[in-house]
Formats: sequence, C-alpha cells, structure tokens
Amino acid sequence: MFRHVVMFSWADGVDDAQIAAVAAALDALPSKIGVLRSYRHGPDAGISDGNFDYVVVADLNNADDFATYRDHPDHVAVIQGLLAGRVKQRAAVQYETS
Amino acid sequence: MFRHVVMFSWADGVDDAQIAAVAAALDALPSKIGVLRSYRHGPDAGISDGNFDYVVVADLNNADDFATYRDHPDHVAVIQGLLAGRVKQRAAVQYETS
Repeated sequence: MFRHVVMFSWADGVDDAQIAAVAAALDALPSKIGVLRSYRHGPDAGISDGNFDYVVVADLNNADDFATYRDHPDHVAVIQGLLAGRVKQRAAVQYETS
Repeated sequence: MFRHVVMFSWADGVDDAQIAAVAAALDALPSKIGVLRSYRHGPDAGISDGNFDYVVVADLNNADDFATYRDHPDHVAVIQGLLAGRVKQRAAVQYETS
C-alpha cells in the first residue's frame, strides 16, 4: 500500500463554514477518483497542544496512483478553490506500508 | 475509530542507522501496547519536495486508548531514547474517523 498523509493549519480568519466546505468537498472525492482505496480526513480532536488543525490520509495501491490522485482535476479544484489562501502551514509525507 | 498521526523531520546529523533504530523500535510496539489496532509508520518516499521525513499512523478505538498508547512506558521509552534531540520538527493530528 502507498499512503499519502497531509496536515493543514488554517490561516487566521478561516471559519467553521469554510472548514465544513473543505470536509464536504473531500467527502465527494472517492466517488470521483477511482484510485482512492481509503480516504479518511477530519479536524483535529483538540486534545493535544500544538497540533495542526486538519488531516487527510489517502490509501492507494502505489506511487503512480498517488500521482493520479494528486493531479486529478477534482482534487486540484479543491486545492485551488477551497484551500488556497486558507492554509497557514502544510505538512506532508507519502510512504510505502503494508 | 480514533487515529493519531505524527510526522517528524530529522535534525541535522541524524543518520540512517539512527532512523533504522527508530523504525525497529516502533515495529516492536504493537506487540507491547494492546490498544494499537493498526500501526503503520515509515520514511517519506522522497517524491515530493518539502515533505517531512517520517510518519506514524496509529489506529485505536477511541481517545482513551490513544492516551493509553501515548503514556505507555514502551512508547515513552522510544520518544526519550531514540527521538529526543533527533527531531527538528514535529507535526501531529488526532482525529475521529470511520
């Protein structure tokens, strides 16, 4: 399995409605992007100091499928339409796992 | 399901043997910490610029089990013995997911 993990912290002024719009748009991606085997995302639970605000974990078969996801128009539309300008910090890893 | 995600970037001078020691120590945790339902960790695949270096994804039943994992002596021993002083940056999220 190939897993993509990305975290965001929101820029100042990003509100709950904007975050809900991101969540809803992400919820719609697995039906549009066939290479996604599992797609689990959500806001930080708020039990640890210093955490980022939101995480997305995408499970795929391999690095090629990750590239397909990364470059898919429906994914790019979420980035450009709902994340651009609203993210203060981003942290990501892709890794091979069993 | 309750998921804990943490990423690290290594401090300057951390070498492959030290990273392998972290990986081996983490591999041993599921047999020692019963609340871990799934525990998938590994180094960044190196296909994206600006990524962190290592990620750990721990799947648990709930936030209480996360606290059990977080505070478990065998987990704390890895942090204190193999991560302390070797991490330049840390990024974490815990979240509820299906």
